[in-house]
Amino acid sequence: MTLARYNRLLLLTEGSLGVFTSKTAVSLIRYRREAVVGVVDSTAAGRPIESFIGFGHGIPIVPDVNAAASLAPDALLVGIAPSGGQLPERMRRHVLDAIDAGLAIISGLHFRLREDAELAERARRRGVELWDVRDPGPTTHLAFGRARSMRVKRVLTIGTDCAIGKMVTALELRAAAVRAGLDAAFVATGQTGIMIEGWGTSIDAVVSDFAAGAAESLVARVADRQICFIEGQGSIEHPAYSAVALALLHGTCPDAMIMCHRPGRTHHNEKPDCPVAPIEEQIALNEALVAPLHPARVVGVSLNTAGMNDREAAEHAAELAERTRLVVCDPIRTGPAPLLAAVREALGI
Amino acid sequence: MTLARYNRLLLLTEGSLGVFTSKTAVSLIRYRREAVVGVVDSTAAGRPIESFIGFGHGIPIVPDVNAAASLAPDALLVGIAPSGGQLPERMRRHVLDAIDAGLAIISGLHFRLREDAELAERARRRGVELWDVRDPGPTTHLAFGRARSMRVKRVLTIGTDCAIGKMVTALELRAAAVRAGLDAAFVATGQTGIMIEGWGTSIDAVVSDFAAGAAESLVARVADRQICFIEGQGSIEHPAYSAVALALLHGTCPDAMIMCHRPGRTHHNEKPDCPVAPIEEQIALNEALVAPLHPARVVGVSLNTAGMNDREAAEHAAELAERTRLVVCDPIRTGPAPLLAAVREALGI
Repeated sequence: MTLARYNRLLLLTEGSLGVFTSKTAVSLIRYRREAVVGVVDSTAAGRPIESFIGFGHGIPIVPDVNAAASLAPDALLVGIAPSGGQLPERMRRHVLDAIDAGLAIISGLHFRLREDAELAERARRRGVELWDVRDPGPTTHLAFGRARSMRVKRVLTIGTDCAIGKMVTALELRAAAVRAGLDAAFVATGQTGIMIEGWGTSIDAVVSDFAAGAAESLVARVADRQICFIEGQGSIEHPAYSAVALALLHGTCPDAMIMCHRPGRTHHNEKPDCPVAPIEEQIALNEALVAPLHPARVVGVSLNTAGMNDREAAEHAAELAERTRLVVCDPIRTGPAPLLAAVREALGI
Repeated sequence: MTLARYNRLLLLTEGSLGVFTSKTAVSLIRYRREAVVGVVDSTAAGRPIESFIGFGHGIPIVPDVNAAASLAPDALLVGIAPSGGQLPERMRRHVLDAIDAGLAIISGLHFRLREDAELAERARRRGVELWDVRDPGPTTHLAFGRARSMRVKRVLTIGTDCAIGKMVTALELRAAAVRAGLDAAFVATGQTGIMIEGWGTSIDAVVSDFAAGAAESLVARVADRQICFIEGQGSIEHPAYSAVALALLHGTCPDAMIMCHRPGRTHHNEKPDCPVAPIEEQIALNEALVAPLHPARVVGVSLNTAGMNDREAAEHAAELAERTRLVVCDPIRTGPAPLLAAVREALGI
C-alpha cells in the first residue's frame, strides 16, 4: 500500500482552501511538492495559492477537474480532514468528474469511497482505483509493550490539542536527523502522514481494543532502524480524541516525547466548555501514563506560531521555556535543530 | 437490538468452564439465571456446574448441542471472552450443530459470525439469526462532554486491570439503588453487559476516534433517569486496553467513580513485564484525566475477593481502606451497601 504509483496529484479543497480543514492539502504541498500538479477549488480558482497558504508558488488552482486536463493528473486526492471525517456534498461532483476522467481517487476520510454505492459502481465501470487511506484493514493485534524490546529508539510527538503540529514536528525531526547522519524513520499514524510517507496506519480508524496494538505493529516495521519519529494524534485531555492519544503512548512506548503546542489555543475545537488544560499539567499526565510501562520524559516543546510575527513567536517561546524548563522552538519558523539536540542528549545518540 | 426474544439460552463454554475466559457464561448465569437452560462443554458434561463456578445449581452440562434437545433451547450463546476475541476452533462444530438444530447464535466476540462464510451460509439456509453483540453498527458521533448537561447522575466503575469486576460492581450497585427506591439504570459497555441488559454498545469494538462519542451516546439514552451506573472497561494503565478506559472517562463525564481492584493482581494479563501500577497512583491518574473536563472523585473501592476466605478478604479490605482512605467492600461477598452509601453521599442524592 503505497502512494508511489501516483505522482501527479490533483488536490481537492473545494470551498476549504486556506481554511483549517484543508490541512491535508497544505501538508501534501509542503512535503510532496514535486507530486502536486494542481488544486481544485472553484471558490479560489485563478488566484495564487500563496495568498491562501503562504507557500506553494506555481501550483495552479482550477475550478474543476475538466479544467485540469492539461496538467495531466493521475489521481484526485481529497485534501481535507474535517471533524467527523465525512465527504462534504460540495465535493462529490468533483470526485465523480475525476472518476469519469480516469483518475484514481485518494481519500483519508472516515467516509469510505469504496462503501459509497455510486462512487464504487462508477469507479468499477471506469476501471479506476478508489484508495481509502484511512482504512486500517484487519487489525487484531493486542499491545503488550513489545516496542520496548526493539532496537529502534522511539520519539513520539504528543500535543496539548489536536491539529497542532504533531505530524509536521515528526517529519521535520526525521529530516533533520537524516541530515545529521542518523538512520531515522518517520512513522505515519494518520491519513496525511500516510499520504506523504506511503505507508502507515490511521490509528484513529482502528477499533479501540486494537488501537495500541496497531501502533505497536507500526513500530515493529522500523524495529531495526536507529531512531524513529512517531506522529502523535489528538491529546490526552481531548474530550473526543484522547483514546487515540493514549493508544499511541502505550502502543509505542516512547523513549522520549516532544510536546506540540499552539499559544492561544484555549479550547478544544472552539467549544467554550472544553478548555485546553495547561501545558505543564499535560506534560505531567503524559509522563505519568507511560511511567508504569516504560518511563519517559517530554524533552522539548514544539511551538506552532503560524501567523504570528517573529517578536510574538519569540515571546511565546521564552515564556514557555520559563514555564516548562524545556527546549522550546518552532521547527517551521526557526528549524528543528534545538529539538533534535534535546532528543539526542536524552537518548544518548 | 435486544436479547428479550431469546429466553432459553444454551451457553457454550467447550473446554473453558471454570477457566477465566468463561466469564461471559458465568455472568449470564449470575444475572440472567432464569433464561439459562444448559451449558455445552464436552470436557465437563454430567458434572455439577457449582463444582466449576461455585453456583448455578441445577443447570445441566451437556456434551453437545444434540444432547440438549430436551432442554428446548432457542439460542446458543458463545460464553467466553478470550483475549483477542476470536472463535476457538474447538467451538466451531457446536456452533454449526446449533445452526442445524435451528438455534439462533449469540456471540460477543470480535470475530463476526456474520462475516464467516460457512456460518453465514449455513444460517441463511436454516433461517436462523446470527447476532454479533459486539458489532457497534455505524458510529460516527464525536464526544464533547455533552453528558455533563444531562440530568442523570453518572457513576463509572473503573479498574486497576481488565476483567476485575467493573460490570459486576455496576450491576450490583444498580440493583441496590433500585431496591433503595432510586430511578437507577445500568449502562452496558461490553458484550456481556449487553447480553444481560439487552442493550448497549461494546466500546472496545468502536473505532477509536468515535469510542468516547459512543459512550456519550449511551449516556444520552438514560439522560432523564435519576442515576446510572456505567460499566467501565480495561484500565487506564493497561498496555492494550487503556484507550477504551479513557474513552469511557471522557465520553461519560462521571460525577463519581468506583475503583475495582483485585488484591494480588500484580501484572496485566500475567505478562511479567507489564506490572499493575499501585491503586493510589491509578486513582490519582483517573481523577487527573477527568479534571479539565468534569472534575470527579473516586468515592469507593470495589474489591474482588473471589476464592479467598473471609479473613483474607477482610484483611485486604482493611489494608486498602487504610491506603486509600476510601470505603472498601466486595459487593458479591458482603453486598454493595457501603459503596452505594458513598456514592449517594458524594452526589447528594
